[in-house]
Parts: sequence; structure tokens; C-alpha cells
Amino acid sequence: MAMWIWYFGDYELYHHLKLHMRRDEYDYKFPPFWRLDDCHHNVVFHRAFSLDKPGSIQVWARGTGMLEVDGKRYPFDGREIALSAGEHRIEAKLMSMELPSLFVTGAVESDPTWDVCAYDGKWVKADGDWWRQKPEDDPCVFRFQYRRLHPVSMEALEGGWLYDYGEETFAEVCIGNWDEMPADEKVDAPVHLRFGESRAEALSDEAILQVQLNRGDPALISARAFRYVWVSTDMPLTAREEFLPLRPRGSFRCSDERINRIWDVSLRTFHLCSREFFLDGIKRDRWVWSGDAYQSYLINRYCFGDEAIVRRTILALRGKDPVGSHINTILDYSFYWIMSLEDYHMTTGNDDFIRRVWPRAVTLMDYCLQRRDGHGFAANEGNGWIFIDWAEMDKEYAVCAEQMLLLRALEAMQHLAEIVGEDGSGYAALFAELRARVDEFFWDERQGAYIDSFASGRGHVTRHANIFALLFGYAGEKRDRILQNVLLNDAVTDIRTPYFKFYELDALCQAGRQQEVMQRMLDYWGTMIDQGATSVWEEYSPDEPMEAQYGMYGDQFGKSLCHAWGASPIYLLGRWFIGVTPTSPGYATFDVRPEPCGLDWFEGNVPIGKWHGEVHVRVQDGVCTACATVDGGTLYWKGKSVQLERKVVVQLA
Amino acid sequence: MAMWIWYFGDYELYHHLKLHMRRDEYDYKFPPFWRLDDCHHNVVFHRAFSLDKPGSIQVWARGTGMLEVDGKRYPFDGREIALSAGEHRIEAKLMSMELPSLFVTGAVESDPTWDVCAYDGKWVKADGDWWRQKPEDDPCVFRFQYRRLHPVSMEALEGGWLYDYGEETFAEVCIGNWDEMPADEKVDAPVHLRFGESRAEALSDEAILQVQLNRGDPALISARAFRYVWVSTDMPLTAREEFLPLRPRGSFRCSDERINRIWDVSLRTFHLCSREFFLDGIKRDRWVWSGDAYQSYLINRYCFGDEAIVRRTILALRGKDPVGSHINTILDYSFYWIMSLEDYHMTTGNDDFIRRVWPRAVTLMDYCLQRRDGHGFAANEGNGWIFIDWAEMDKEYAVCAEQMLLLRALEAMQHLAEIVGEDGSGYAALFAELRARVDEFFWDERQGAYIDSFASGRGHVTRHANIFALLFGYAGEKRDRILQNVLLNDAVTDIRTPYFKFYELDALCQAGRQQEVMQRMLDYWGTMIDQGATSVWEEYSPDEPMEAQYGMYGDQFGKSLCHAWGASPIYLLGRWFIGVTPTSPGYATFDVRPEPCGLDWFEGNVPIGKWHGEVHVRVQDGVCTACATVDGGTLYWKGKSVQLERKVVVQLA
Repeated sequence: MAMWIWYFGDYELYHHLKLHMRRDEYDYKFPPFWRLDDCHHNVVFHRAFSLDKPGSIQVWARGTGMLEVDGKRYPFDGREIALSAGEHRIEAKLMSMELPSLFVTGAVESDPTWDVCAYDGKWVKADGDWWRQKPEDDPCVFRFQYRRLHPVSMEALEGGWLYDYGEETFAEVCIGNWDEMPADEKVDAPVHLRFGESRAEALSDEAILQVQLNRGDPALISARAFRYVWVSTDMPLTAREEFLPLRPRGSFRCSDERINRIWDVSLRTFHLCSREFFLDGIKRDRWVWSGDAYQSYLINRYCFGDEAIVRRTILALRGKDPVGSHINTILDYSFYWIMSLEDYHMTTGNDDFIRRVWPRAVTLMDYCLQRRDGHGFAANEGNGWIFIDWAEMDKEYAVCAEQMLLLRALEAMQHLAEIVGEDGSGYAALFAELRARVDEFFWDERQGAYIDSFASGRGHVTRHANIFALLFGYAGEKRDRILQNVLLNDAVTDIRTPYFKFYELDALCQAGRQQEVMQRMLDYWGTMIDQGATSVWEEYSPDEPMEAQYGMYGDQFGKSLCHAWGASPIYLLGRWFIGVTPTSPGYATFDVRPEPCGLDWFEGNVPIGKWHGEVHVRVQDGVCTACATVDGGTLYWKGKSVQLERKVVVQLA
Repeated sequence: MAMWIWYFGDYELYHHLKLHMRRDEYDYKFPPFWRLDDCHHNVVFHRAFSLDKPGSIQVWARGTGMLEVDGKRYPFDGREIALSAGEHRIEAKLMSMELPSLFVTGAVESDPTWDVCAYDGKWVKADGDWWRQKPEDDPCVFRFQYRRLHPVSMEALEGGWLYDYGEETFAEVCIGNWDEMPADEKVDAPVHLRFGESRAEALSDEAILQVQLNRGDPALISARAFRYVWVSTDMPLTAREEFLPLRPRGSFRCSDERINRIWDVSLRTFHLCSREFFLDGIKRDRWVWSGDAYQSYLINRYCFGDEAIVRRTILALRGKDPVGSHINTILDYSFYWIMSLEDYHMTTGNDDFIRRVWPRAVTLMDYCLQRRDGHGFAANEGNGWIFIDWAEMDKEYAVCAEQMLLLRALEAMQHLAEIVGEDGSGYAALFAELRARVDEFFWDERQGAYIDSFASGRGHVTRHANIFALLFGYAGEKRDRILQNVLLNDAVTDIRTPYFKFYELDALCQAGRQQEVMQRMLDYWGTMIDQGATSVWEEYSPDEPMEAQYGMYGDQFGKSLCHAWGASPIYLLGRWFIGVTPTSPGYATFDVRPEPCGLDWFEGNVPIGKWHGEVHVRVQDGVCTACATVDGGTLYWKGKSVQLERKVVVQLA
């Protein structure tokens, strides 16, 4: 099937660059503070092929250049080019200040089997988009879908109107009636708009997203995050939601309506943040962060199961060689990027993508390894940022949580090397060495916990490194002590971001504490939703008064009220309550271990593997019913287990 | 003085990329076959400064982003921003899919003292353009000037009209009367145009530049190379020459009108090829080649003396790190690039530019050195192209001429290291070692010449390596034997390209053979012009019939009839007849050694140094008159010498 093709990874770099030009704050744009790479602008595509019988092709391109078919030159104008039976060779030399891309249809068709080169002496396989199969498609325009929104209320206020769209959205807004207007309409009088994720924000001059239109400005305002809009004019407002058409393949319903609501709000949040790539949040930062994305990959497993957005995000985040800094400038975020490849492979079983990305994993890991200190620890060498979490932590010199991530990334590299048939023994050796050294330097026998930093002598304990030790299986026989001394110890400072709560709750579930996790979800997400949240917030403190909730980074309304990392209940419910997880790449085999956890009943679907695989699970009255659309599953229930065969309903009591 | 500024070197990369999208051949564009780098798209500018008294600034940008003045945010809209007396700090975060650039005017102004960073942990000084001092200037548009052209004849032919503009030009063409038309006019009927550097080309369906306009196509055709245009319509044609406003500071006039004509045609040729950067030719390739550019730098010394175009070309050619291939994929062209820095410094004395470019010289030289063979010779390691010249040459394994260039480049590196205060002794050691080895492997005592290749055992001698040995001063006491056995030996194959003729004639002049060079100029350039050339051709064989002259690369009109490398008479006449050459950087001292060479009289100007320096020389009746607008010169005439003082006329008889 013919599709638009481009240099592998360049579509992602191009749209990643464009995306990062769009964050609005007050009257200005807010570019990210890290290196952003652009696509290649001068490339050549190549394909040699053989025809059994005469045929013809038509060729189009985005960009300018020259098509050579069997050495004869043609323009890229879609003219019919006749080909005899026998051997042929196509070369398409293309330049563009945007994304050079090619579309060939007919006797041979453009697809990712074509070769492409950016004149660096290396030919790679092209990449393409199955959803771009027409000459008139433009790979330089990312394709969203749109739907008309209608406000649930309008209120005359402060000499204008406050529109409430009922829930968080990401939408274009137009002054006037969209359906009756030409696309390039201008306003004929000044208009002031304030967008609010909260009502208070839309009514405040401190609203992060504000637009002042002057006479003659376009009447259409590009898509942005809001639930409320206050507008200074009586002219009607039209809003069109802009979204990526993702179908939820995963679902969850249970006897507790608050839990159902948590799932729904999490899904809404996650869908809004799933666009060209996985975003952190839609008002702010509207950027692509590797740590946030890593969680999104895991959440995606249990709802959309969309492989394409994961690949796009992985490629966009990585950028081009040579590596000049950590991903997003954050040390931990480089490790997450490497870990994400292993997760991607486990989810999809797609060896081909891993083979294509492998060289970029090697150079990134090289970059990380070269920056270790004399002990072999990943330390901050001045140019990076030790993030881990927004938490008080002793970040003096080498930080334990970073070593845990480095260990995990080394394991991932070893595993990825196997997949691509390379020698990963070097990574294995480094792993073994570092693992021993981490225990030697960071384990505090007296406290029965990993400390943040050994250099400071403070022996400070936070949850983060200890959570990782549990999650990654590095705790060994220290497991129970860590659980008691840290995770279940109220004296150790709480995790306050949904970001790290993800890992904490994951670790608790892994330790069989689903009941506790269910309660924590109700306390945190449940309370947030009870207070009116229609999407999950970047951060939330149930004990703070409402008027203090919206601030962040010194801005009164700085907090993002729609943040992907808050959608972890999708992951937690799918992974630990429905209990589905792959046990070999691409869900060739998978476990289903439902955990009713005191609910009267629950049922859910989890996407399985690449295409339309799904497993359905229902638990009620001590009976578990399961059915998968693919082979390979094993259902575990009350000490029994049974193989799931394709489309066969199984019931265990 | 306020000017538009950008990341150092990025203006050049951006316009270099755009330029290489414009080569037309028949119905398509012809992109170059090497890597083209783009500018950074996400940068931050920074300036800390102190004000004695209150003031204000206005800030504009190309791109999108955020301005922070003392931590307070502003848009880039030129609003007046008041500043108190005291310390201030400006940070401008800018993104653009084109060239991010900044303009600040008022109490502090944007100029190359500002710092800029592309988020790679390295701050560099910005670069700017003294000719862009207004907010409305757009650094993304290269500024040319235009002048209306009028045909010298119009002839009704083949159902259309043949316009002859009298000489080679580079011009926009418009169907209709430009002066009466809106800029976006469309044609209302199909029009066919054929452009010709020769009359034959414009009348042939094989013309390289042809345009088929259909109803509704723009009536304006972008600038291109031609002297003749054939057009299928009776509508009038308007042509506007597009050119870089360069003032010739050098001149030459003598008693031989053919020599004067050679100078004029060379200057016309060179001016047409001097645009954003030094081009090889204006019809073809319309690309920037390092070998061609190196000669242009030398020619520029004796006519325009324009420093800016040299800097632009050097930066554009070099591209970004890491080096992925030789410049233009050609081994020799990497060496010329390094050599050009030394020439640039000698011409201008501009240490600052050398300091800025030095890191890029080091990484390019590293790339070259890493690719040497076991003998330490620069050899073709598969991914590069040994060019040297379009000549039969034994290119088996390591080629002697390449080693000569590597030697010269090593000397240049050593010298550049001194300028920037780095240790160049490594380069000096490599030079000494390689020089001995070249003699050992390539010098053929029996033939009294350097051979092309030692590996093949053929012992083939061409002029190229021997010319370099003379020119670069590596011949030592072999000097006269090389001259006799090679340069003056008709049995050794002639140089046929004006490209390598440049070096051959330079070497002959250096050996005091001006008389011979004068004759060769008359035979080659003189004959070409006698045959009607209004610009110097890419290649010329006086003995071939006219109808065979226009072909190249298998195209009947493939040859470029306006090629910069043919403008060497400007260099030769200035360097070896007027006899001016710098003897210390920036012409702080310079020699004037006129060589009348049998002419009744000649006079000329040569630009001296950066600004408006000039030396004027006249020779007649055995008397030499000279005057310079700057100090530092020494006039040598008939065994006598005298210091030239600023604006003092000196006469020696």
C-alpha cells in the first residue's frame, strides 16, 4: 500500500520542533530550554525492484528536487511514468526547508522498505505513515480531528460572557459563528479573551492563556487548554475540540462509582495529553518530557494500546546524534528513554523498531556512561539536572535514585542487545559491578533503607530510591524491611506529585497491597474529582484550601489542571486489578491475575498486542470470567490457573 | 549601532540551505549530493549591562518566544521598555522554523558582543549584519539589488521572439511590462521560455533552463543565468538583474585592449558568481564548492576586497559538527577550507573571526587526520572523492597532490594555532614527518618530478602535484628541474580547466615567467573572448569547433558559460603584474613589485586591508608611480625599493 515516506525519525523531529513553538503564556510563547533537533533537509530515496509485466508509476513529493527512474529524469508532478517488465531503479533527490517526503503509487509503491540517505554515507530504511495514502496528504501538517463543542452554560459577567464547556478540553475558538464564516475571517472590533482551566482563572487577569484581539486580527484562535472562556464581546463564540482520534481499547467498570469516575477522568486527561506525542499537560508545559512520557507508555498499554504514538514520542525525544545533553537536560530522563525501549518491545514485540533505534540507544548510553564518576556512579557533572521528583531530597553528589535508574537502563540495554543480536555482555558486567556498589554506598543497615546520598553524611531517607529498589527487583531480602521502614512509614515524607505516586502505588501493588492502593486512589483522585476536577491535576494537596490550589511556579494559575502523569489509575487498575501483564514480547504470552480487592464486582478490557487483541475480565461473587481474542494468556484465580484460548470464555470460581 | 543578530554561523547555514534548493535543470530542481546543515531553531540570547542613566529599549525578533528583561517578561513587539540606571540583564528565548534572530535598539543595542546559546551548554558570541539596522529588515531574506535590463536586440524567430541582452546576466524575467504590473500578476495564456547563455542554447529544445508557464502561473520567473531568452509570446518581456552590490576596489588598465577586455570579462564573471556566497557558476552548478571558493577568495583580494562574502562562504561550507564527510564530499576541498582560513587572516588580519572558527578547523582537521593510511597519507577511504582536477591522473591509492594539500593545510593549522594562542606543535611535527615521506614515496629522481601515485607502479607524471610543490615552496632545490621537466614540458598533458590553470599560471609567475603567463592568458582567455564570450567559461578548448563547445556532462548545453574559476586573470594581474601582496596580516605591511612585461603602460588599483585601503600603481616608459591610502607598503622597482607612506606619491625610474 502506497504511503508518504520520509527519513526514519525525521517526521517526529519536524513535528516535535513545531509543537515546541506553541506553548502560550500571557502574551508570549515559551520555548523549552533544551536543544531541539530538526529533520534533514536534503535526502535521497532509493528503490530497486523488478516487474513481471509492464506497469506505470506516479510520483509526488513535498519539497523540491529530481526524480530519476532508470537514470531518466522527471519532475515530481504525478505524471504517469511507464515501466517495462524487468529490473528498475528509482532515485528521488529531495530538498525542503520543511520535511522532505515522497509518495509513489502504481507498479511500485512508497513504503518503509525504501532506502533513504541524508548524504552521510549511511543508508537507512525510510519511515512512513499508513494513514497518509493520498497524494494530497501533507506530512508537514499533523492530522487531528475536530468536533464542535457546545457550552453547558453562559453567564453574563464583567461586561462580557463566561462560557463553561462542562469539562476540560483542548479546542480552537472562533469569534463569531464558525459554520457561517470563511476560514480567514477577521474581527472588526477589539476582543479580549481569558481562558481558564478553572472558573477562577477565566475570571482573573492572571489567567495564563489570554488573548487580546485587535481590529483586523484573525477571528480564529489556535487550539488551547480550557474549560471556561470569558470573552469581552457579545458576539457568539464557537469552539472546536482538536484531538487525536484514539479509540480506547481498554476499559474498567466496577461497583464503586467513585472508582469508575476516577477511570473516566483519567482517560479524559490522558486522551487530551495524547497528541503528536505524549505531552505532560495541555496548558502547561505543552512539552514532551521523557519522564512523563515513560509513564504515558505504561498508561497507554491499558487504554489506547496505540503503538504509533509511543514510537513517535520515543523518536522525538531522542533527537539526533551526537548526544549533546541528557534528554530534556535531565539525567533520569535519559535512563527512562532507554528503559522505554524495553517496555515498548515487551508491549509490541516489534523487533524491527528496536533494530532501527538501537544505534541511538547505544550513543545515549555511551553519553551516560562517559559521565560517571570514579565510583562508577551517575553523578551531576554540571550540565545536567537531577530531577527524580519535586521533593525534598538530599541531592548532594551522586543520588541513589539515579543509580537505580542507571541499573535498570543497563539491564534494558543488555536485553535490547539480545533482541538486535549484539553483544550486551559489557552492559551486564557494568550492571553487576554497579549493583554491588550501590548496596555498599547507599544501603543504610541501621535505618534499613537506601539513603539519598552518601557524600553528604546526612543519611537522609526518601521514598524514591527505595520505591525503585522494590519495583526493579533490586531489594532482594531487604524487600520487607524497605516496605515497612519506608513505604508504609508515615515518618518518611509523603510523595505529593501524582508523578512519583505512580511508582509508589505500583510498588505497593507489586507487594500485594492493592487494598491500600485502592484507598489511596480514592483519597487522592477521588477527593480531587469530588472537588470538581474534570481532569487530573499536575499536583494536588487535599488539605489545602481551594483558593491556593491553582498556583504553581509563582503564577497564581500556574498549575496545570490536566496532566498526563495523573492518569496512572488507568495503569494501576489494568495492571494490578484487572491484573493483565505481558510475560513475553508482544503479549505472545500474558498473565491475567484479577484482584477484586473488596469490590462487589468489576469488569474490564485490556488491549493485547499490536492489532485488535483484547482480553476481557469480569469478577463477581467470587467468580472470575475471562476471554481473550488471542491465544497466549494464563488466568490465575484463587490459586488455580488456566490457559486462555482464543475467543474461548473461561470461568473460575 | 543596533543590528539584527543570530547564532554565530547560522545565517550562513540557513541561506546556504535555501540557495541549494534553487538550481534548475529542465523541469526540475537539482539538489546537491552532500549533507547540508540547517541553523539552530531554538536559541537564547543574553546580555548583561549597566546604564549610567535611565533609558529605554525596543526589541523585535524573527521567530516566536519570550523576552525577559531583569526577570520580567515581554513580547517581541517593539514596545518601549523603560530601564532605570544601574545593572540590567536581558534574556531572549527564541524559536523559529527559519532563522531565529533578534533586534534590540535603544539604551543597549544588539550586536556581535551579545552571547547566544543553542542549549548545548556552550555560549558563543552572536553574529550580525551591519547592513541590517532596521526592525523591518528580515534576516531570512537575503538582500540583493536589482536593475532593469534592456535587450540590445529582439528578433522574430520560430513563432516567438529572441531577446539578446548583450552579455551574460543573472536576472528575473517577467511576462509583461514590469513597471505597470502588480507583483503577483499571472499569465493568461500558456508561454514557453528558453533561456540561453549562448544563442544556440536559447533556440534549442535542449536548453538547460526552460520554463513552461500555463494559464494562471505567476508571470514572474525567479532570477537565473542567461544572455538570450526565446519566448513564445508577443507579450513584452521585462528583465531585472539581481546582484550583490559590490564595488570593485581593484582595477587594471594597460596598453593592450585584449588584456583590458580579459580583465573586464573576468570581473563581470566574478561579480555574477558572487552572491550569498561564492558560487562556481550561475547556470550550473549554482552551488558552493570549497575548491572553487578558495580561488574566489584569492580573486576577491584583487577586485572587491569584500571581507563579508569570504566569511559567509567559509561558514556556509563548513557546516556543523560533527564532521560527517569531507567538504562537498571531496578530500581536497577539506584541505582548501583549512587553507582558506590562513588566507583570510593574511588578507584581513581579523583574529576574532579566526578565534571563532578555530574549533571547527580543529574538528575538520581531526576528521582528515583520522582517515590517513598507515604511511600517514591522506587516501580515499571509500566515502570521499579525490578530485584535484578534471584530468587524466593516476588516482590509485594515495595521490601525491592530496599530500601536498594536506601538508599545506597542516602548515595553515600551525599558523592558525599561533593566532588563537593554542599549541600547534602537533601539526608542525606531522608536517615534518609527512613532508619527508612524500619525497620518499612520490619523488621520482629519474623523471625529475613528483609522480601521481606510488602504489600503481606506473610512475605517471601530471602537472598538478608538481605545481603545488612549486607554489607551496616544497620543491626546494628541485625547483628548476620541476619547472623544466613538467611545467614547461609539452610532453606532459596540458591543464585544460581554468580551475587548475589558476595554480599553473600562479606557479609560473612565482618562477618569474610573467611574460609566458601573459601570452597564455591571451591565447586562452583572449581567444575565448574573441569568439564572443562575455563571461569566462567553465572549460574551453581553443582548438574545438564552436558547435562542440557548449556541451558537458552529456548535455548539449551542459557547460557553464559563466564560471568563477575562470576569473583568475584578476588575481594574476593584481598579484604578479601590479605585483601587490600582503607580507603581514591585514596588509599591515605589503609589497608592490610591478612587472610591466612588455606592455607600453599599465595602471591599476589593488584593495589593501579591510576598509577603504587602496594602492595605485602606474608603469610607463620605465617609470613606476605608486601611491597608497595606507602606510606599510614597500615599492620594488628595477632593483630599488622605497617605503610607501600614506597618500604620498612615489616615483621610481
